[in-house]
Amino acid sequence: MFDFEFHNPTRIIFGKGKESAIGAELRRGKIRKVLLVYGSSSTKRTGLLDRVLGHLSESSIQVVQYGGVVSNPLLSHTRRGVEIAKSEKVDAVLAVGGGSVLDEGKAIAVGALADDDIWNYFINKNPEAALPIYAILTLAATGSEMNGTAVVTNEETKQKYPIKSPAIYPTVSILNPELTFTVPPDYSAYAAVDAIAHVIEGYFSKAAGPVLQDRFVESIIKTVMETSRIFMVEPDNYNARAEFMWAATLALNGLTLTGVEGFSFPNHMIEHSLSAIYNIAHGAGLAIVIPAWMKWYSRNHAGQFERFSQEIFGLSGVGAGIEALEQWYRGLKVPVRLGDANIPATDIDMIAANAHELGVRWGIGDEYPVSAIVEILKFAV
Amino acid sequence: MFDFEFHNPTRIIFGKGKESAIGAELRRGKIRKVLLVYGSSSTKRTGLLDRVLGHLSESSIQVVQYGGVVSNPLLSHTRRGVEIAKSEKVDAVLAVGGGSVLDEGKAIAVGALADDDIWNYFINKNPEAALPIYAILTLAATGSEMNGTAVVTNEETKQKYPIKSPAIYPTVSILNPELTFTVPPDYSAYAAVDAIAHVIEGYFSKAAGPVLQDRFVESIIKTVMETSRIFMVEPDNYNARAEFMWAATLALNGLTLTGVEGFSFPNHMIEHSLSAIYNIAHGAGLAIVIPAWMKWYSRNHAGQFERFSQEIFGLSGVGAGIEALEQWYRGLKVPVRLGDANIPATDIDMIAANAHELGVRWGIGDEYPVSAIVEILKFAV
Repeated sequence: MFDFEFHNPTRIIFGKGKESAIGAELRRGKIRKVLLVYGSSSTKRTGLLDRVLGHLSESSIQVVQYGGVVSNPLLSHTRRGVEIAKSEKVDAVLAVGGGSVLDEGKAIAVGALADDDIWNYFINKNPEAALPIYAILTLAATGSEMNGTAVVTNEETKQKYPIKSPAIYPTVSILNPELTFTVPPDYSAYAAVDAIAHVIEGYFSKAAGPVLQDRFVESIIKTVMETSRIFMVEPDNYNARAEFMWAATLALNGLTLTGVEGFSFPNHMIEHSLSAIYNIAHGAGLAIVIPAWMKWYSRNHAGQFERFSQEIFGLSGVGAGIEALEQWYRGLKVPVRLGDANIPATDIDMIAANAHELGVRWGIGDEYPVSAIVEILKFAV
Repeated sequence: MFDFEFHNPTRIIFGKGKESAIGAELRRGKIRKVLLVYGSSSTKRTGLLDRVLGHLSESSIQVVQYGGVVSNPLLSHTRRGVEIAKSEKVDAVLAVGGGSVLDEGKAIAVGALADDDIWNYFINKNPEAALPIYAILTLAATGSEMNGTAVVTNEETKQKYPIKSPAIYPTVSILNPELTFTVPPDYSAYAAVDAIAHVIEGYFSKAAGPVLQDRFVESIIKTVMETSRIFMVEPDNYNARAEFMWAATLALNGLTLTGVEGFSFPNHMIEHSLSAIYNIAHGAGLAIVIPAWMKWYSRNHAGQFERFSQEIFGLSGVGAGIEALEQWYRGLKVPVRLGDANIPATDIDMIAANAHELGVRWGIGDEYPVSAIVEILKFAV
């Protein structure tokens, strides 16, 4: 068990209809004016946006609306958000949407208090301050609702990079599982892939981690698999959506990484390149990368994969768990090979070079040279 | 899955020698003067107290020492601490010790900002404010280091009652597993009993809880059992002490109760009476009460106990898990019957009446009338 610090100050309000609490929470935080960040049509179509505006109005919170966040949120749109947050002098950011909306909202919250360009914080400095961030989550997957990370894509340089800071933990995140009933099947599937991807990176750490955290990871993986089997068939099964939603939050709120060392995010490193270059959904990219990385990595870490096979699937052997995970992906109808997402195998060198750049920034450039990333991607052909 | 709020703002600093961070943490919190609350001989004997005083001095933190906290901390001693905290105008409480020291420290932190007697907050009002609380933990068991609860015994009225408030979450808790190497065998065993007791109350809730939380509970129980088997033989096994320490914290920091309803703390309700009347260690009392309560409760909740038998011990049947738990207690050499702690069976009516009083305060007086508590205690004869 390695030394660690754990501090997660986000308040979670979880349950049916809880978005109605947003006005009171903002007032408790002495917030008078918010930048309401949201995506595109679905927040409007479902009536959520109007309901939220109603709650804010009841609590006399002034609102500046800023919609149009896309999946894999863009730097250009983030920069415009920063300008508006500054010129309108908002006190806080209220993000209403999925992980992309929350991530762009976090970046805007940092930019609003910065003198320099927001992209600097993605490439060479850590944010030290941000406006308070409030969130109403409509898609469970990324864990952004209870962590200090945000990912934005620079569409000019094709870089999908994260910021990480204690300053960007949301103050309050409201999780109403009912809001996820309308998530379409493809994104529901990507969400399940994503939640498992988050715990897998730490689980297969190089150093022997604490067994308690291994067990927590296995608990999360089994719960994600069980609940997704239900909600893929019954999208409005409250209990399945609810257990999944909380499992996805706990998958990346720091809990499963306490006392764990020797891990990095190689699957995310490679997937970020697929999203940045081909604009495919993060969950889709992960389902392609993870089995490939596992086949490559398991060659020197057999014991960890034997445990994975046994604990998750009740199977024996190194490869059995990887095989079963792939089958689970196929059941979700997500791509599991580059070709499934129309990514040509001839692009592998270019993808690897792009991923390696991020690897260098994450301090795993030596562990994952371009040649290793090429090897991994060849397993995805 | 039931609605819930989760907000746990305590910062955990975990690892070898981490008590050296205390000065910097107090300065970060703008604390200039602390009431240093501690127990009796062991903190001095191990040299910890001197080391902590050295760290505080290096950071120019003024210190008012207040030792003498006992296991099952006493109201009279708490009241004197409140007087000193007020007259010395300290900015914070720094508790150095186990759960008892932390609990009394929390109560003093509440009393220091209250105009009325501290016991009022145990019997008829909730604390709304408290001085900031900092902790250096020397015994892992109670979870007090990361929750908003504290228990104190009124020795005049023989009442062992809790306070509960968001105001008494520690600001920072430092957990160095090395400091638990010197915990004697009996208290190491009680600690293991206590940690499992905390998760058991929610696990056997009346309503079907989320499966994820059941799995987390099972993860904690298995880890406590595995690690205690090691540290009872090798008291200075760092990894066993460390995994146990973090498991004990997570056992009562709110995590395992998220989304769970229909639970109460009947085992704690009855045990508090044993501690209050006979001054036995909390863990010892729990090992007597829990099997008795399980035998009584399992008669109408067979399914839950079948799962418990299977998941924890790999056994079949309702009673097999209870039997195995008792065997585990016996292996730890803790009392498992009233007689083992020299408590006469003829006292059962009196114990039940005392426990029922607390049950009424906790809102479970109807569910646990005196007659039911008598029935439960008869299983402990």
